[in-house]
Order: sequence, then C-alpha cells, then structure tokens
Amino acid sequence: MINAVGRELPDAVGSYVVRPYQGLGAEQAYTGTAVTRRTVQRAKDREPKLLPDLVSAIRAAGLRDGMTISFHHSFREGDYTVGLVLTAIRSMGIRNLRFAPSAVVNISNCDLLEFVRDGTITAVEASGIRGVLGDGLINGEVRLEQPVILRPHGARPRAIETGELTIDVAFIAASAADAYGNCTGQTGANPCGSLGYSFVDAQNAGKVIVITDTLVEYPCVPVSISQQYVDYVVKMPQIGNPEKIGAGAARLTKNPRDLMIAEMTADVICASSLFRQGFSFQTGVGAISIACTKFLAERMKQAGITAGFALGGITSAIIDMYDAGQVRAVACSQSFDAVAAKAILDRPGVYEIDNSDYANPFRRGSYLSHLNFGVLSALEVDTDFNVNILTGSSGQMMGGLGGGPDVAEGADVSIVVLPIVRGRTPSIVKRVFTCCTPGESVACVITQAGIALNPRHRSYAILAQDLEAAGIRTVSIGSLQELAQSITGEPEPIRTTDEVVAVVEARDGTVMDVIRRIR
Amino acid sequence: MINAVGRELPDAVGSYVVRPYQGLGAEQAYTGTAVTRRTVQRAKDREPKLLPDLVSAIRAAGLRDGMTISFHHSFREGDYTVGLVLTAIRSMGIRNLRFAPSAVVNISNCDLLEFVRDGTITAVEASGIRGVLGDGLINGEVRLEQPVILRPHGARPRAIETGELTIDVAFIAASAADAYGNCTGQTGANPCGSLGYSFVDAQNAGKVIVITDTLVEYPCVPVSISQQYVDYVVKMPQIGNPEKIGAGAARLTKNPRDLMIAEMTADVICASSLFRQGFSFQTGVGAISIACTKFLAERMKQAGITAGFALGGITSAIIDMYDAGQVRAVACSQSFDAVAAKAILDRPGVYEIDNSDYANPFRRGSYLSHLNFGVLSALEVDTDFNVNILTGSSGQMMGGLGGGPDVAEGADVSIVVLPIVRGRTPSIVKRVFTCCTPGESVACVITQAGIALNPRHRSYAILAQDLEAAGIRTVSIGSLQELAQSITGEPEPIRTTDEVVAVVEARDGTVMDVIRRIR
Repeated sequence: MINAVGRELPDAVGSYVVRPYQGLGAEQAYTGTAVTRRTVQRAKDREPKLLPDLVSAIRAAGLRDGMTISFHHSFREGDYTVGLVLTAIRSMGIRNLRFAPSAVVNISNCDLLEFVRDGTITAVEASGIRGVLGDGLINGEVRLEQPVILRPHGARPRAIETGELTIDVAFIAASAADAYGNCTGQTGANPCGSLGYSFVDAQNAGKVIVITDTLVEYPCVPVSISQQYVDYVVKMPQIGNPEKIGAGAARLTKNPRDLMIAEMTADVICASSLFRQGFSFQTGVGAISIACTKFLAERMKQAGITAGFALGGITSAIIDMYDAGQVRAVACSQSFDAVAAKAILDRPGVYEIDNSDYANPFRRGSYLSHLNFGVLSALEVDTDFNVNILTGSSGQMMGGLGGGPDVAEGADVSIVVLPIVRGRTPSIVKRVFTCCTPGESVACVITQAGIALNPRHRSYAILAQDLEAAGIRTVSIGSLQELAQSITGEPEPIRTTDEVVAVVEARDGTVMDVIRRIR
Repeated sequence: MINAVGRELPDAVGSYVVRPYQGLGAEQAYTGTAVTRRTVQRAKDREPKLLPDLVSAIRAAGLRDGMTISFHHSFREGDYTVGLVLTAIRSMGIRNLRFAPSAVVNISNCDLLEFVRDGTITAVEASGIRGVLGDGLINGEVRLEQPVILRPHGARPRAIETGELTIDVAFIAASAADAYGNCTGQTGANPCGSLGYSFVDAQNAGKVIVITDTLVEYPCVPVSISQQYVDYVVKMPQIGNPEKIGAGAARLTKNPRDLMIAEMTADVICASSLFRQGFSFQTGVGAISIACTKFLAERMKQAGITAGFALGGITSAIIDMYDAGQVRAVACSQSFDAVAAKAILDRPGVYEIDNSDYANPFRRGSYLSHLNFGVLSALEVDTDFNVNILTGSSGQMMGGLGGGPDVAEGADVSIVVLPIVRGRTPSIVKRVFTCCTPGESVACVITQAGIALNPRHRSYAILAQDLEAAGIRTVSIGSLQELAQSITGEPEPIRTTDEVVAVVEARDGTVMDVIRRIR
C-alpha cells in the first residue's frame, strides 16, 4: 500500500501490523482509556529500597526473559547507565529483552551491538538508533526478529499509555537521589538537567529503578520524580559524564556557511508578523541552531522585544537569553549541555517539563500547540518538503527522529535549516530516502543558496507576505534541488533488499515510512 | 460483624459492601492495575480551552445526571468555587450527582444542604463533612440513598486509582492559570498555596475544568498542574478568600491550658531519642499545634539541632522555622494559612507535594514512611487509644478525618493532643463514639493532666525509656479517663437509630466504623 506521503509500505512486518499514515488532521481514532502497568499495592514501608548493586535491584524488580526495559537519554553520548545495566542483565543470563529507551545514541562506553549479538536484546523501540546499533542493523551485521520501531518524542507517551509499548522495568539515571527514590537530574556530582523523558516511564512502568551516583539525605530537594513511583535505588560510582551531553554543540561555529544559514533563519523569524512581544521559539541544538539563537538574541535586543517562552532541548545560548531578561520562561524537556543542565536549579523561570507536556498530541495539549517558531535540522529535504532526519547518503543511520516531526507540526512557522550539499551529497533531493516529517508540516526550508516556502503549509500566505514586505527573496524548492544536483551530480540510488529493518512511526502511531536493509 | 477495633458493622449499607478493618499490617490484598478515566485522544489543538462561563465549561465537559464531580478544599472555609459550580450545575438541571471533594468544610457562602434537598447532590464522598451538610445528614434533616463515604487523605488516591471512586469531572480552583490550563495556587490575586489534593484528580478524572480569577500569559510559571491534564478553563471574579484559609489558626493562643499541653508535647518530642539532627515532624494546625511548633523551634535552637523536613498542612509557624534555617525542607501537601500559601513561590526548600506522595500507602511509599513525630488533634480518645476526629459530644459532625489516620500510622511517634475535658464533655472516654484512627497506631496521648503512652504501640519500649531518662512522668490512659469522668460525670450515651449515615473507611478501604443517625 501507499501512504499519504507516497511511501510504499508492506501490510505487516513480522507481527507488526502497518497502519499507513493518512496525513495531518486525518489521525487514527485512538480514543481509549489510558492503561498502565503500575500496580495498586500496599507499599512495604519498612523494606529498604536502596539495594547494594544493579543485580540485586534487577532481581528484586523481577526482570525476566522477554520483558521490556527503558532508559532516558539525557546524558546523550556521556551516558554510562545503559552499559552498566545491560552488562548486569547479561551477567544474570536474562535474554530476549525489548530495549526501549527514549533514544539510542552512540554511547561511547557501550557497544550495544554486542548485546544484540548475544541475544540480551532482541527488540528495539526508540526515537532513533544512531551509532553502531543502527548501522549494524541496517548493514545486516546483526538481525532482529521484529523491526525496530522508531517514534518521535511526542509519540512515545501515547504508545506507553495505550499499551502498545508496555514497560516492565524502567531504569532512571538521576544525578541525585535519596535512598527512598526521590530524585532529580539538577543536583549531584553529574547533573544531566531535565529528566523530562522519564516521567511517563515512572508513572507507567511495572517497576522503577533509580540509579544515582550522588545519594543525598532524605528528602531529595528539588525532586523531579518522587518516591511514590520508585521501587528500588542503586548507587553507582558514576552514572554519566555531563561534559559529553553537549558534545561540543555549545561552541559557536565559525563556519561561514553555517553562520550564513543561521543569519538567514534569524532574518525569516524577524520578518514574520509572529515575531512580536511575547513570541515563542524552539531553536534546538547543532551549529546552525546555536548560531541562530545568538543572532535571534541580537535582533530581539535591537527590536526591543522579549520572548514569552523557549522550548524543548535547551542550550546555554538560551540560558544566556534568560539571564539577560530576553525570555520569560524556559521550558526544558531536555538539557542540551552542561550549562543548561545546571540552570534549572536556581532560575525560577527555567524549569523541567515532562516530555508528554512538551510534545504529546494525545493528551489535552502540549507546549507545541503554542509554539511560534521551530528551527529544525535535517539530513535531506525533498521537493515535497518531506524531511529525512534518520538516514545518510548511503542509507546509514545518522540521526534520530527526536522531536522533529512534533515541532514541525506544532510550530506556526517550522523552519528546516541545512546546507544545500554536504560534501558530494545533495541535501535537497527529489525524494528523501526516508520520510520522517511530512512535507505538509514544514513551512520553510533554508539553505545558504536560498529560502524556499512551502505553498501547502497552513502559514504560507501570511509568511510569504511577511517576507515580501521585509524584502526577503525566496526561491522554489525545485530550484534548490536542481542547484544541489548541479553541484553534486545525480546521486547513485541507494540499493536495498526487501527486508524491513525499522518502521518509522508518525506522531499518531501510523507508519510514515520503513527503512530497508542496504544491499 | 465485629472489626479489629471492636466495632459492630452491618454486612452492607445499601449497595456499599462492608469489608471490615482487620488491623494494621493485615491489609486487604488490593493488588491490581491502576485504572484511570482519562482517555487517550488526539488533542484539539486549535480549539480554545478558555470558555466564557461555568455553564459552558460544564456543558463542554459533558456532565450528566448521576456522574461524579470533585474539588479540592485548599481554600477551606474561604472557598467560593464549590458554591459557584454547584449553582451553575443546578441552573442546568443536572441532578443526582456524587459530590467527591477532598473534604467538605463549612463553606461560608454555600449552603450545601440546599443542593442535597433539591437532588443536585445525592451521594457524598470526602475526608470529612464538617458543617451544615454533616449535621443535616446526621440529624436526619436530609437523607441520601447511599451512606457518605469518609476516607482519610491517604486513602482517596487509592480509591480513585482502583476505580472505587471514578471522577467524571474535576473542578480545580487555581489562583493563577493561563488560557490553556497550566495553573498553580502560588500566584495570582488569591493564592491558596499547594494544590496537593488535585494532582490525583487531574491525572485520573474524565474531564478537568480549571477555575481561576487570575488569568496569566501563556505559559503560567510556576506551574502545578499542567495543560496536558486540563480540558477547559473558566475565569471567575473570585475563586476564594485566602484570609479565611487559616481562619485564625495562625494566631498564637494565650489559653494557658493549650499552652501547657503544647509545652508538654514539645517536652515529649525533645525527650525522644529520635529528636536529633535531621529529624522530621508534622505538627499540623490548631491552637495547640501552632503553640507546639513555637515551643519546638525554641527547643531546637537551644539544642543546636535542625530538622530534615516538616510535612503536611503547613502553617506560617513552620515557614518562620524555615526562614530561620531550622528546617531544610518543607513538603506542603496543603497550605494552612495565607502566609504559608505564598511561601512556596520564593523559597526553594518549601515545595508543593502531591497528596498521594504525602500519605498514600498504596503506591511505592510516601513522606509518612519517614516521619519521626506527628502531632494530631482529636475530639475524643478512648482507653484503647482509639481516636475520634469526626463526631462531637452529641454525635454531631465536628471534624474531618484529614490525614489523621495516615499520620498516626506513619509517624514513629504519633502524639494525640487534647484537653482532658471540653466544657462538660470528657475527651478521654471508655469508648469513642466514632473510631477514626485505630489505637494501635497512637503512641502517646497528651492532656494537661498527664501523658499516657500506649503499650501496644511499636515505639512504646524506646519511648518509655526516653521519657524516663528525661524525668518525664507518664500516667495510664485509664487514669486520664477516670479523671475526666470525675470532672464531667458519666456522659449520657448518644442514642442512635440503626440507619447508617456515613461509613468511615480505614487507609486501605476497609471499614473502621459507621456513623448512625442520631435519634
């Protein structure tokens, strides 16, 4: 079958039944009552929750073959907890697990492929599987019986609440915790900041294990996730390295191409009639995004306006704006560098939010419903404005869905920023290899070679008028594609087998695309 | 049948099936999966949540005959919201509702009896029904088909999660809210402080309506209950009067009897070996409690020790201690006066907690599992140390269960404070008229005539030793009862009919006692 973004999909992949994406506003009827794995049971008040090691906690939690485990990815590449836990699980001989972290990143000290090879992990669900695991799967180096299910951040809570993704044991790395499970990412030796991804896990998992390296006196204050959700606590020497959260992203780029795209993005935002006192933005992470945040801060100062809120993954560049009084509220679903990770503690307007509050379209509404500008990075955009944020030029796994599809749909003006080519690879193409974000939800694409507006986007008419009034010229997406191709030549098509390695879900749980094994 | 505290109970009251209380540690097996009335459904992002009036919001929420509505009681006698909502509901002709606030207090501007008489309300569940409603029911002035179900604060979340108490529409009075439902009790024109009781309602009710008198710009910061749980928002001229929260309780008593009891209580606390650096306490509200807090603060200063945390309903006396550096953390499930209501906003160690986190024994543990000292007021205590906090000398409804049974069970040393007689009524009796808190969970009773320790309490041996070491003399509870009776004479027994007006549930949902209609 063919879905609403023109992708050919199988009816099913293994036991996974494909529900094709039907377009924005044509969501499947998921009305149902929220379910949870949490039992209502008398607390054993007098039994200590603090256990001596991971093996004891995993045993106490009753983890068995075939169950599902979850993690947050707030430490990003600096995470130590996933590796420690999987190693403990393997040592206990528990196998055949579904590994369902909020995202798989390329954790430096943990070779996830090993845990697939030895059968500890036999299924994966996450927002992305960047790194060795993704590459190993897509290259056929390792195989899983079920396809990997990739979901945008906003889609994970719905999948958990409806029972599509039931979590048996959630492991929550917390930089400070008391012995009874009250915990946070804001204090302690290695703060990771917002624990935004873990709220839904804590509230719905069968068992919750908090892992910390800084045990504090009861009660842990401030507290992000409370004792009422936590079954066991384990202290480890170090849960992660906060310096690796940002992985250099917080440095301001000197690359003139990136600076140019960033400045063009600030131009578009400032030309919009939505750029006014109290506006809201999410600029994200990455060289162009950080530079764009800096340009935006300057323009706001010149224009004499301040923002109502900044959203999402928060960087030090946004904390600087808060400190300068340029943004009233900073809602952190994630802290994107060590500075942002520490900023929540002592700034009343910088606060942690539940990932579901950030992006879940299946509760009563999220911050995204109020977002004016969303700046998004991408690997490829095609002439239908469809965006690929997962797979690279040879089909390899390069990114994660993150909140990309969520922000694109939520923001009044969603702006995808990317260089027109990367090396010998065009970024603007006729058809993206993997469709992650539907073109309908993208208002604008900005490359150093020009700005393309999407005539199918709901903000098109106003934005086109605003840019014209500001004297900003636009080009067609087709002309950008032709230009890119004229630089790189026609790219070799990526050849795949029929075997589906991963399913890319839309925000509502329908299927946007599938990723096939590379031949 | 007879339950573990010797109360004779019917097998059922109407359709309510009585499960007899079986004693501490003999809880019923309630293991089950948490259920919720919350639907997983695509948010209608573009539809405004702010509706022009209560009638519009009630209609939008789909309230119908026979449904259940809930409220918090954080404004106590200063609440305006209950009356406004019930009046709106009556004007719409909706009847036969189950009224399930966290507590019914004697709201000054709302005659709840009227809503029972006219059939708007036909069932009531709360922690107490103090005031005209309780009196009217107990006197037979009005009748309900089902008995009122009274639950301690810690028992309400369990009842909601297991589906015993399903809430169709929760009304949440918030002193500040944005038009999308993010709200708090900490800011705005009329702050009520902690919204602790409303978290479980917000998370589980079918529909949630936030009622505010201070509409703020999006996003409302700080936020207590987030947009993701809120369906509709209504602005009213005034939601409540914060000056009436404390209702004079914050004034220090000059009554020498109360001061004496308060000082004796501080003596007992300070004599305990648990009175040490980092200890924890809940002193509550009322003349003796406030005075006791003041004495305790003095003793702590003299002893050079500070407390780890103070818990529960928080008064300005405890905020003073925080400001003086005498307590590290103040966990507010409720704010008991206008000063405490404002204190959360700008004091990092004074924070709002979910009532479930405070007292629910059916999650993974609560603050109460870590409480050293709990000071509790009472109407009557009997020679089995059973406590009555509901009914007065002629059987009338005088109080609410509140967190009394929860704190008694949780605290290492639970101290019930009361004058030995009130007017011509003895407070220490042979058998309490209504058993609310089981004697097993009471460590100590303090009257101006002496201190009685409970030999059946788990802390007895150590506490007896501690008091002896400090030279504090104790008396038997029997001698206090005899003394009281010698002052007042043998009280006339209260004569009742067989008709059960209210069921008093224990923390686990079993029945501690029933309240019968007065003859």
